[in-house]
Amino acid sequence: MQSSPATEPVRYSFLGPRGTFCFAALQQVASEDTATFVPAVDVPSALRMVRAGQTDAAVVPIENSVEGGVNATLDSLTAGSPLEIRGEMLVPIAFSLAVRPGTRAADIRRVATHPHAWAQCRTWIAEHLTDAVHVPATSTAAAARELAENPDADFDAAICAVPTTGVYGLVSLSDEIADNRNAVTRFIKVSKPGEIPPATGSDKTTLMVRLASEKPGALLEMLQQFAAVGVNLSRIESRPAGDQLGRYAFSLDAEGHIHDERVQAALVGLHRICPEVTFLGSYARADRQVTRLHAGTSDEDFGAARTWVASLLSRVTR
Amino acid sequence: MQSSPATEPVRYSFLGPRGTFCFAALQQVASEDTATFVPAVDVPSALRMVRAGQTDAAVVPIENSVEGGVNATLDSLTAGSPLEIRGEMLVPIAFSLAVRPGTRAADIRRVATHPHAWAQCRTWIAEHLTDAVHVPATSTAAAARELAENPDADFDAAICAVPTTGVYGLVSLSDEIADNRNAVTRFIKVSKPGEIPPATGSDKTTLMVRLASEKPGALLEMLQQFAAVGVNLSRIESRPAGDQLGRYAFSLDAEGHIHDERVQAALVGLHRICPEVTFLGSYARADRQVTRLHAGTSDEDFGAARTWVASLLSRVTR
Amino acid sequence: MQSSPATEPVRYSFLGPRGTFCFAALQQVASEDTATFVPAVDVPSALRMVRAGQTDAAVVPIENSVEGGVNATLDSLTAGSPLEIRGEMLVPIAFSLAVRPGTRAADIRRVATHPHAWAQCRTWIAEHLTDAVHVPATSTAAAARELAENPDADFDAAICAVPTTGVYGLVSLSDEIADNRNAVTRFIKVSKPGEIPPATGSDKTTLMVRLASEKPGALLEMLQQFAAVGVNLSRIESRPAGDQLGRYAFSLDAEGHIHDERVQAALVGLHRICPEVTFLGSYARADRQVTRLHAGTSDEDFGAARTWVASLLSRVTR
Amino acid sequence: MQSSPATEPVRYSFLGPRGTFCFAALQQVASEDTATFVPAVDVPSALRMVRAGQTDAAVVPIENSVEGGVNATLDSLTAGSPLEIRGEMLVPIAFSLAVRPGTRAADIRRVATHPHAWAQCRTWIAEHLTDAVHVPATSTAAAARELAENPDADFDAAICAVPTTGVYGLVSLSDEIADNRNAVTRFIKVSKPGEIPPATGSDKTTLMVRLASEKPGALLEMLQQFAAVGVNLSRIESRPAGDQLGRYAFSLDAEGHIHDERVQAALVGLHRICPEVTFLGSYARADRQVTRLHAGTSDEDFGAARTWVASLLSRVTR
Repeated sequence: MQSSPATEPVRYSFLGPRGTFCFAALQQVASEDTATFVPAVDVPSALRMVRAGQTDAAVVPIENSVEGGVNATLDSLTAGSPLEIRGEMLVPIAFSLAVRPGTRAADIRRVATHPHAWAQCRTWIAEHLTDAVHVPATSTAAAARELAENPDADFDAAICAVPTTGVYGLVSLSDEIADNRNAVTRFIKVSKPGEIPPATGSDKTTLMVRLASEKPGALLEMLQQFAAVGVNLSRIESRPAGDQLGRYAFSLDAEGHIHDERVQAALVGLHRICPEVTFLGSYARADRQVTRLHAGTSDEDFGAARTWVASLLSRVTR
Repeated sequence: MQSSPATEPVRYSFLGPRGTFCFAALQQVASEDTATFVPAVDVPSALRMVRAGQTDAAVVPIENSVEGGVNATLDSLTAGSPLEIRGEMLVPIAFSLAVRPGTRAADIRRVATHPHAWAQCRTWIAEHLTDAVHVPATSTAAAARELAENPDADFDAAICAVPTTGVYGLVSLSDEIADNRNAVTRFIKVSKPGEIPPATGSDKTTLMVRLASEKPGALLEMLQQFAAVGVNLSRIESRPAGDQLGRYAFSLDAEGHIHDERVQAALVGLHRICPEVTFLGSYARADRQVTRLHAGTSDEDFGAARTWVASLLSRVTR
Repeated sequence: MQSSPATEPVRYSFLGPRGTFCFAALQQVASEDTATFVPAVDVPSALRMVRAGQTDAAVVPIENSVEGGVNATLDSLTAGSPLEIRGEMLVPIAFSLAVRPGTRAADIRRVATHPHAWAQCRTWIAEHLTDAVHVPATSTAAAARELAENPDADFDAAICAVPTTGVYGLVSLSDEIADNRNAVTRFIKVSKPGEIPPATGSDKTTLMVRLASEKPGALLEMLQQFAAVGVNLSRIESRPAGDQLGRYAFSLDAEGHIHDERVQAALVGLHRICPEVTFLGSYARADRQVTRLHAGTSDEDFGAARTWVASLLSRVTR
Repeated sequence: MQSSPATEPVRYSFLGPRGTFCFAALQQVASEDTATFVPAVDVPSALRMVRAGQTDAAVVPIENSVEGGVNATLDSLTAGSPLEIRGEMLVPIAFSLAVRPGTRAADIRRVATHPHAWAQCRTWIAEHLTDAVHVPATSTAAAARELAENPDADFDAAICAVPTTGVYGLVSLSDEIADNRNAVTRFIKVSKPGEIPPATGSDKTTLMVRLASEKPGALLEMLQQFAAVGVNLSRIESRPAGDQLGRYAFSLDAEGHIHDERVQAALVGLHRICPEVTFLGSYARADRQVTRLHAGTSDEDFGAARTWVASLLSRVTR
């Protein structure tokens, strides 16, 4: 990724097809007017395209989503040649009941969608489409596309992401059919190591860390490297470190940017005490929440402290 | 759940239909000879049946599985009337390419399975069934059942859990089609609060904990309650605590049983400093790995320490 | 020490002779009308008298004082049969320039006092008694007594504790001759193990603790036993643990009383992880400062937490 | 202090007079052949001479000694213009019973010495000089000098440091009269800020640190700055921070030299989180014990970690 606008990534792989929630996330960071969108059948495939140079970046879910899970993403990020996160996007998980123009609710007998989407609209369906039968699809968007493009499709409606309805020329009978009306899924933009986006004051740094041992203190010691320098964690997930029984790996989101001295200090500590630390990117938070600084942890505080220590060091006899 | 064998739970809900990986997990703890197996369409439904008294226990995935995710389970466990974990089971994630007797590999044009299962066999399929098309299904077992029971099914093969093939009278053309041959998924048995199974020396205690604040020290302080008494964590996952921005909840597996003094001491500490602690069960580990005790943390060590303190306390003037 | 007033300790050993700062401390807790005061030549002797049953209690300095040091006291407390602290007293370190009636400042050529007292009045002496010569004495009180009782004493004035002047019938030419006008020394009342005074809400618990190892984490782990239960330390001093190179012992004052659940919990932790913990008493603070409770550390908080854990424990199958 | 031998400090103040234990400590680092020894009447005076430029360095006790205490030294070090520790020396606390040539034990009626020395030989005296009377002196050396130089002294013997006997031409009747035969006192060499002696691999760094608050976690947080970078403490003493009730100051000896990266990292941390940190010197340990390095805390470990972080930082877009 170069900084010149002319050479902005123009090819994006994403968890397709067009119309998925992941597609909506991609639309937040790129336009098809200036970029090529390349659908992938799953998260590993989307990332594989980046690694192979077939696309310049990928947009994939990083938190539990309807069609693909965070673990597939976390594992694929670190299994293979290095990739880094460049940004994150939030997408509301709102479903439409999409039909062909002219179809009425009373006409609906069979509804196509991804099994997970069906599960998330179960209450609404039980009330409004009592006798409807589920026709499974590989994604919510695939169901909508089939409905739109195949006159012989064996179903009358599709449950898909709200924006998808328009993508395929369908009509929404309701946009509020999800049982949980406030669900939001987080997606990330991933590319090969290259330029790290500048610090914004509202940043996140993602890491994968292995612990040296399994004593109760090992996790604590690792977290103390963050606490000692005032870096908060907004996400921590233990991951089985497959190669060795009883060893842990942790996927972490730390508040702050590698450009912040306190984040650098935490990383120095992790590198020293952990057998493996993988940097997975520093990037702007989607929620734009400004990082709260704790006393003594600003760049100025670090600078003043280092200046003092340097002045002492300069007096050591050589 | 009563302790008399005659009144063992006889009705189990599980993530159905028969033949799922979850079904295989259920078969590890119960037999259809003495129990009734009730399939549920998703994890929340399986748990809802227990809450409603329609089943005595449920078996559901607790770690990323092919057909249902850990997050749905974690969220459903704590959203609703109390449920507790009574045991865990490990199931190898091995897929069969199941066909009707007589079908040859060369005959296969369309393959039904859950989208996630399809994704996990992609490499093998690309090599061995180059031109096969994916027909999505709501579960791997549903695909197998449809193939077995519906002569008009519009596909020639199903990808399903290895044991499922026999369940439906199908034939396996290969049992080694998963891209990752070592995958294992963890399932749990859940019931209403009642008798907690006895300590075995190889136990796990699952908790959901909220932190009072979001300062970097808050997570550390919580973990110090475990470290101070020598209790190791084998799993930790931050969960967004939906009600309040910036507040965290953590899903934890602690090594040990509520019967162990050190686990009790950790829980006393959590109860004191955390606004909310939910006990989700003490139960035997599926891997039978014996809990390693750290110096000074055995029941004897706690007993001796409490005896000493009690002797001091007895001397305080009243 | 019995609780009946009639049998209150009636024999006190103290760092003598009468008129020392230690004597002033003793006067804060006992009256010669009802008790016998037995002067000792040094701190170990005062404690030895208690151990031998020659006195019921001893009053000795526990923080740097003019005539005897904290270390002698700390070491003597733990070297020998058990002793415990029953209370503490604060004595302002104010010196008099004591003379026989009739002596004027201009007459003073030679001034007797303990070498440490002389050092603490050096500035005043340099200004007001420019040519005076120091005659060393074993204590400030001994100097005053000699001046009062021995007409042939080879000095004209004594520097002694302010109250001492009157004890020996001398006259003070100034009570403000100390270079530091705000110095205060802490003394303790010590007796054999017996009844521990009741909690007052403003208490202190004194401990001597050995660490198992010298790794940087060992001290931290010990202190975490206090922090985990919200117990503050008001004093910590490392002491060489003479028997083994590189091992530490720590003399600690913890805020709170053994009657407080949080102090009990801290002691249980210390007993578990430290090779040696010596309880040296729970007693009222001299400054009457009420112990600040941190969230989640009151007896009620502990009680509620233990009740919850007990309710879980009661459900474990036996 | 310059590094050229020709300009080595040639004037030393010490806790006099000649013949004290402090004098013995001074003799370990300087010879009267090439340096001037200036006796001071107390520790503050010895340090004042350095501050005033009257001497180039001072040698004073830093741990409880017979004639002067650590607290006077600790307080004087930080109360006034900056001073730093340049080295430490250990002196065995062995006492002689010194007499004029010809005096026999049976002739001894009155024994002069500092009150603290008298206390430390009490057992031996009780056995061997049953009826001897104590004549107090300002120091052990002052007693010896008076005995040697004043034929009219009103005592027959002096208890003094073993080497002192010869200094004043006296004869020792016994060199083993101390009740504790293994006592050793630590002394330090102090000078104005200037060149810091080079790291030897067996070093100590002395600090005075104030804490921002008195919550139980504050001390812990301070110590975590050391633990997080693997720096062990060999001494910690809480000191009342006179200016504000409930605030603590701590006098610390950390293992290692300001030249060590881990010590620098600890100091950066202290400077950031503590309202006041005073550097009191990095210098060779008297016991020559090599500092044990913990995994991940060598200069190489720090260097490798910083190099990694720098490589990440270099990729941040500017």
